[in-house]
Amino acid sequence: MTTTTNTIPAAPSGVVTPIIPPDLVTPAILLDLAIVDANIRRMQAHATAAGVDLRPHVKTHKSIEVGRRQVAAGSAGITAGTLGEVEVFAAAGFDDIFFAYPVFATRARAERLRAVREVARLRVGLDSPAAADALAAAFAGGAPLEVLVEVDCGARRCGVPPVEAGALAAYARARGLLPVGAYTYPGHGDRDAAAPAEASEDELEALATAADAMRAEGIEPVVLSGGSTPTSSRSARAPLTELRPGEYVYNDLGKLRVGACRPADLAFFVAATVVSDAVPGQVIVDVGTKALGREGSEARGYGTAPTVPGAVLTKLNEYHGYLAVPDGVARPHVGEVLAIAPNHVCPVVNLFDDMLVHEAGRPVGRWPVDARGHLS
Amino acid sequence: MTTTTNTIPAAPSGVVTPIIPPDLVTPAILLDLAIVDANIRRMQAHATAAGVDLRPHVKTHKSIEVGRRQVAAGSAGITAGTLGEVEVFAAAGFDDIFFAYPVFATRARAERLRAVREVARLRVGLDSPAAADALAAAFAGGAPLEVLVEVDCGARRCGVPPVEAGALAAYARARGLLPVGAYTYPGHGDRDAAAPAEASEDELEALATAADAMRAEGIEPVVLSGGSTPTSSRSARAPLTELRPGEYVYNDLGKLRVGACRPADLAFFVAATVVSDAVPGQVIVDVGTKALGREGSEARGYGTAPTVPGAVLTKLNEYHGYLAVPDGVARPHVGEVLAIAPNHVCPVVNLFDDMLVHEAGRPVGRWPVDARGHLS
Repeated sequence: MTTTTNTIPAAPSGVVTPIIPPDLVTPAILLDLAIVDANIRRMQAHATAAGVDLRPHVKTHKSIEVGRRQVAAGSAGITAGTLGEVEVFAAAGFDDIFFAYPVFATRARAERLRAVREVARLRVGLDSPAAADALAAAFAGGAPLEVLVEVDCGARRCGVPPVEAGALAAYARARGLLPVGAYTYPGHGDRDAAAPAEASEDELEALATAADAMRAEGIEPVVLSGGSTPTSSRSARAPLTELRPGEYVYNDLGKLRVGACRPADLAFFVAATVVSDAVPGQVIVDVGTKALGREGSEARGYGTAPTVPGAVLTKLNEYHGYLAVPDGVARPHVGEVLAIAPNHVCPVVNLFDDMLVHEAGRPVGRWPVDARGHLS
Repeated sequence: MTTTTNTIPAAPSGVVTPIIPPDLVTPAILLDLAIVDANIRRMQAHATAAGVDLRPHVKTHKSIEVGRRQVAAGSAGITAGTLGEVEVFAAAGFDDIFFAYPVFATRARAERLRAVREVARLRVGLDSPAAADALAAAFAGGAPLEVLVEVDCGARRCGVPPVEAGALAAYARARGLLPVGAYTYPGHGDRDAAAPAEASEDELEALATAADAMRAEGIEPVVLSGGSTPTSSRSARAPLTELRPGEYVYNDLGKLRVGACRPADLAFFVAATVVSDAVPGQVIVDVGTKALGREGSEARGYGTAPTVPGAVLTKLNEYHGYLAVPDGVARPHVGEVLAIAPNHVCPVVNLFDDMLVHEAGRPVGRWPVDARGHLS
């Protein structure tokens, strides 16, 4: 599906590393739009063929332009993880937003949630009576707010046990909210290569149980939402009606390790300059935790430089990345700019104000990370 | 030295947790200015008494207002870690800046470095002939740029072996730069409680060796710069002339663990709302890696909530923190706002656009994190 690999030198592993623009000031995000578009088309085609809705999570890209491409390709709307993301995308004209988070609607948040619903269809997550009470108070007197009950399918994060979804939905209905379905997060599906298959079974079972529990209360779930990038390939079937993957749009080494993408599907790299080769066996690059987060471990590494065979970021300080270079491999020289592949793309995106977008090496432009920050 | 603890409820461990403002939208940084000021005064008094200069690293706070307080208290100038930080502080009137990084001066960076030197005294780090060549080209024809040779004292990051400092300084001088001294980073001083003492000895020895090596080339080092928050209490003596700690201004759990601060010196917390208690034994708070980074480990935890005895953040997703609450301790309720103490404050600061500043619970204002981002 990736159409542009011919013109770009391939890294040893099959990763399509970007051409580094001349006199580039680093650190900088380099985003290959051809690969992004192919990733969007492929996931949409998968969902469409399976007869389920795709509602991409914008937490990965936080980009209005990338979100528009997902909607243009056929997505049923978007998913957001913070009220700030909801607001940024609503203000940009996205008119169907699932805020997949058990938000606690304080007075200040209530006002902002109501303002969003003036301009967009809004659904909100929920996993406790306390959150239901606050949401009900926030929307008292207006049209009922559509809510989805969050159920736990094994990630042990948020979500009531699936069998209790009916009771919480009934509670929400009694307070004046409009329960329209259930959602779950198969976060235990990215542990290792075997995890996505197991987590996918877990989420389908949890959604089926939640649906039965809601029906027992006389509430017909119209949305049963699951899916993450690792599980999406297997979860797109009944009873699930909606997939919410995020990372597939860019991909990263973590998705590669669990088999959720191919090397050529990596669209996102961080350009870094070699600033020191004073210590043998390594070079220091100008990306540390303030550019990459600290996703990974010293054992697994924090990212790779695909054009330097076997090179791994083994340690990070704030502005320094320790790139270990194997014996027998030539170390890149001071001043050289390398493309770094991160383990987990989402926190990296959130550390940059913009991205250098290219298409097979031809510059497209500098796109803002519109919802960078916007945590609250 | 902390003057305001009487009016604030103390957490069990002696940590002074902030009063949570009503209807606070979280996540939010809560900064106690009284503790910040005490931390600034204490480190300055230590340096002054020892007869060494204090040049605080602004990477920790990235705040013009906090930096001004450090200068007003007597600092000899500031230290910066990125060219973006250098520019933000130079534009705000800071006129004596050490850019403690082996920057590679490409054409674009050269222009920016020259612009800074128009308005401020600028010193730049250096650890390779290649970087010296680029800097020399950047400043060719103008007044010589002052440079400090970086030497490695055991952190194994950047820096030539101390004995080679003279050769690199002579190389820089021959290219038209003005070597004025050497600097080192005792980054191995934060491993454990025994590490600061050893690392402090290492840095003093490295600076002494570097100074001898420079003198052997006929270059008298006027600056021998070292120090980090963990080592500063021991390193403030000859041959060192300048300390560059950063974290002491706010402190964090990591500094507490290595004995570099007392519980009451923690000035910085992240306010987080409990959003879910669906899974027994824990609550979920609305701070994850996009608010805290991923500093720590599952074994050590990613932060604590000092008002909940024994509670530890054992896992983080992007917008979710898993706060494990011990058996027998009451779990905070959904909607409650907790003050979270982070392991490492610097990456957290960089994830927020502003901070809520208070003084013993009285609001002072919302201060921007002026140099947030500014990575390149």
